[in-house]
Amino acid sequence: MKKIEGKITKRGPESWELLNYLGESIRIQGSIYKIRKMKGFSFVLLRTKRDIIQCIAGEELQLPMEECCVELLAQVVEENRSKRGFELHILEVQVLSTPAEESPIVINQKLVDTSLENLLDYRPITLRNEKQRAIFRLQAGICKGFREFLAGQGFTEIHTPKIVQAGAEGGANIFKLEYFGQQAYLAQSPQFYKQMMVGVMERVYEIAPVFRAEKHDTSRHLNEYTSVDLEMGYIQSYEEIMEMETAMLRFTMEHLQAYYQNALELLNVKLPAINGIPAISFREAKEKVAKAYQRPVKDWEDFEPEEEKLLYELIYRETGCEFVFVTKYPSSKRPFYAMDSVEDARVTESFDLLFRGLEITTGGQRIHDYHMQLEKMQSRGMNVDLFESYLMMHKYGMPPHGGLGLGLERFTAKLLGFENVRYATLFPRDINRLVP
Amino acid sequence: MKKIEGKITKRGPESWELLNYLGESIRIQGSIYKIRKMKGFSFVLLRTKRDIIQCIAGEELQLPMEECCVELLAQVVEENRSKRGFELHILEVQVLSTPAEESPIVINQKLVDTSLENLLDYRPITLRNEKQRAIFRLQAGICKGFREFLAGQGFTEIHTPKIVQAGAEGGANIFKLEYFGQQAYLAQSPQFYKQMMVGVMERVYEIAPVFRAEKHDTSRHLNEYTSVDLEMGYIQSYEEIMEMETAMLRFTMEHLQAYYQNALELLNVKLPAINGIPAISFREAKEKVAKAYQRPVKDWEDFEPEEEKLLYELIYRETGCEFVFVTKYPSSKRPFYAMDSVEDARVTESFDLLFRGLEITTGGQRIHDYHMQLEKMQSRGMNVDLFESYLMMHKYGMPPHGGLGLGLERFTAKLLGFENVRYATLFPRDINRLVP
Repeated sequence: MKKIEGKITKRGPESWELLNYLGESIRIQGSIYKIRKMKGFSFVLLRTKRDIIQCIAGEELQLPMEECCVELLAQVVEENRSKRGFELHILEVQVLSTPAEESPIVINQKLVDTSLENLLDYRPITLRNEKQRAIFRLQAGICKGFREFLAGQGFTEIHTPKIVQAGAEGGANIFKLEYFGQQAYLAQSPQFYKQMMVGVMERVYEIAPVFRAEKHDTSRHLNEYTSVDLEMGYIQSYEEIMEMETAMLRFTMEHLQAYYQNALELLNVKLPAINGIPAISFREAKEKVAKAYQRPVKDWEDFEPEEEKLLYELIYRETGCEFVFVTKYPSSKRPFYAMDSVEDARVTESFDLLFRGLEITTGGQRIHDYHMQLEKMQSRGMNVDLFESYLMMHKYGMPPHGGLGLGLERFTAKLLGFENVRYATLFPRDINRLVP
Repeated sequence: MKKIEGKITKRGPESWELLNYLGESIRIQGSIYKIRKMKGFSFVLLRTKRDIIQCIAGEELQLPMEECCVELLAQVVEENRSKRGFELHILEVQVLSTPAEESPIVINQKLVDTSLENLLDYRPITLRNEKQRAIFRLQAGICKGFREFLAGQGFTEIHTPKIVQAGAEGGANIFKLEYFGQQAYLAQSPQFYKQMMVGVMERVYEIAPVFRAEKHDTSRHLNEYTSVDLEMGYIQSYEEIMEMETAMLRFTMEHLQAYYQNALELLNVKLPAINGIPAISFREAKEKVAKAYQRPVKDWEDFEPEEEKLLYELIYRETGCEFVFVTKYPSSKRPFYAMDSVEDARVTESFDLLFRGLEITTGGQRIHDYHMQLEKMQSRGMNVDLFESYLMMHKYGMPPHGGLGLGLERFTAKLLGFENVRYATLFPRDINRLVP
């Protein structure tokens, strides 16, 4: 019987280790990203898992077509004109696989010069573009930053079900499915479960898909997105949740700055400084925008997207901060589990976080008292019997608690300066798109 | 305008820091897990986010009911008879919340003494039991171990859609939903997407929910579970994937050993030694079991669960290893993207990993050549037009690659010695269960 030892085969150095091999011959794998023929030699760009590496091939070498996968034997040569300080002189090319056809879309220029629709239709190919894939390297870095921060703050990662019996956010924006003869839904958020888990572990988080059957066809809506959810017990006020989010965002920006320089440079990203984030109540924000732009307030219960942008402009001008917390949203616009304010029951102990004019987070303190929760549900005409397992936690004791959900794709998009959230979504799902 | 500075309020030390506060008075929050009245004083167990802390309350103190959430002012006193080397002498109790009712299930004994059905029906409460919640601390530790290992090996985390147009595994075991007038499905695995991403980033992984509409009502099936998926390019053989998994499991066991001692002790877990994992071909495994137990082989294409257990017993007796890789499964039983063996096209370059007699992983090398993939699909009578966006990656060039999927709950269950995977699932979904 064979024994698998758990040995990792490395057939050569990683691209980021190459500077340590100056003068040496090494083996390296990758795709032929681009060939540019010159007089007597060719420039070859090799796409490896993290970097695009500049190589030189003499004219005696037979070069395979672009998007071939190859193993090169090459010498690492110091080259100050190259951004990385070296280039590879190719000695041998071994072809590992050959495409059946040339790509119908040019992917090896600085930008993939095509419509958003084409970009998404050809996602398996267009993502191979250096800048396109850097977006998702950074997105992975954001998740890594969040996770490291949260682990350091005593949060435990959880995995909660996405097929559920009742929606947390209510309303019609919920996908239905048949579940062995029962009606079931796709979870709009892990809300109920993360609250339950606060009663168990005090601090929990989850980074996972959520589903919204919204019919909006806008630049900021997706029907499936990745939600970064956290929930924490023993808070004295919803402000502690905002403090936690501010610290998490600051930590994560520092994490990107420290470990993702290549991707940041490539995408020309200027990370926002987070020294502190201004907080303004919903009512004050409405008044502020109305006054500054002489727009009479039409709706005292909600923001229009335009107002969020104007608020951002005002706050940025005043404070230099690109984030703003808007607090104390009207109770009528918040879900049944939101804690109303003691001083004014028409508003909730809640907040949204806007980043560069777009809402990226909704959060707040939740009701922990059983009777208070029952009362609020009844006052909304809800059938409490449908929520028996949710209310179980309140009935048998819960700490004061709250939390938030952050849309990963929206945050990534705004961070990278995209006007459409789809640019920051690997394989977007919207009202018109189900493939790839 | 208020400014949120990003300051984390700590109202006292964490439970795991208390030994540094011997002799001092501290503030600590938690739930009253258990009160045991003695003569002249009470033992109080406080449930904090990670630990249960032993406290002493003098009879002058008014103690609230169990499952109240409290903040204690208490002195940290050295106590050698306590497992942690200290106990808390309670000076003041501030009640933060009070349950509406006493729990109908006793949760503060060593075990929650009830049926599996009750345990799951009352999940929000029964998870508060010290041992119950330790299961999911360890599960979070397993994910943390996997992630750290994979990051170190150059894997990038991805987030792929769960609402899809076509199932990766085929068959009837797929949940349907209506998606804005189109027929859609819930992803049985991220197979297509992780392969596409190998063409982009070479090594990728995802830990996310997958959905199987299987009607099996067994101790090892769930209709929604957490799949740990990885996929890697530039492999020379499927054995490299087995090597990677072996190294990942070893790293993760060491990670648990180093950072999760409390949970391991509490659950009395003996982590398996992973010096190497034996590998045996499907055919040899069948013959071996048939011979040793004098069971004639009825089905040369698949294992019965009983055979998997017998194989484990044999291998364990021979090698002392609790894992075994079974390789080269029949082509007829593997999906259309599996690479057939060059020496024998009736078998595939694939493997399962069995742990303590249960299949926890399926993996293998995938077809990367466009024409080979087309041919295999056509030979199975598949309509290739339905797979246009999947086949795009093959058409425009893919490296040799492969990967695996590991069932997180199955692995956790077997690691902790549970006979039923539901014990290691936070909120299980099965053919009869959709709540909580």
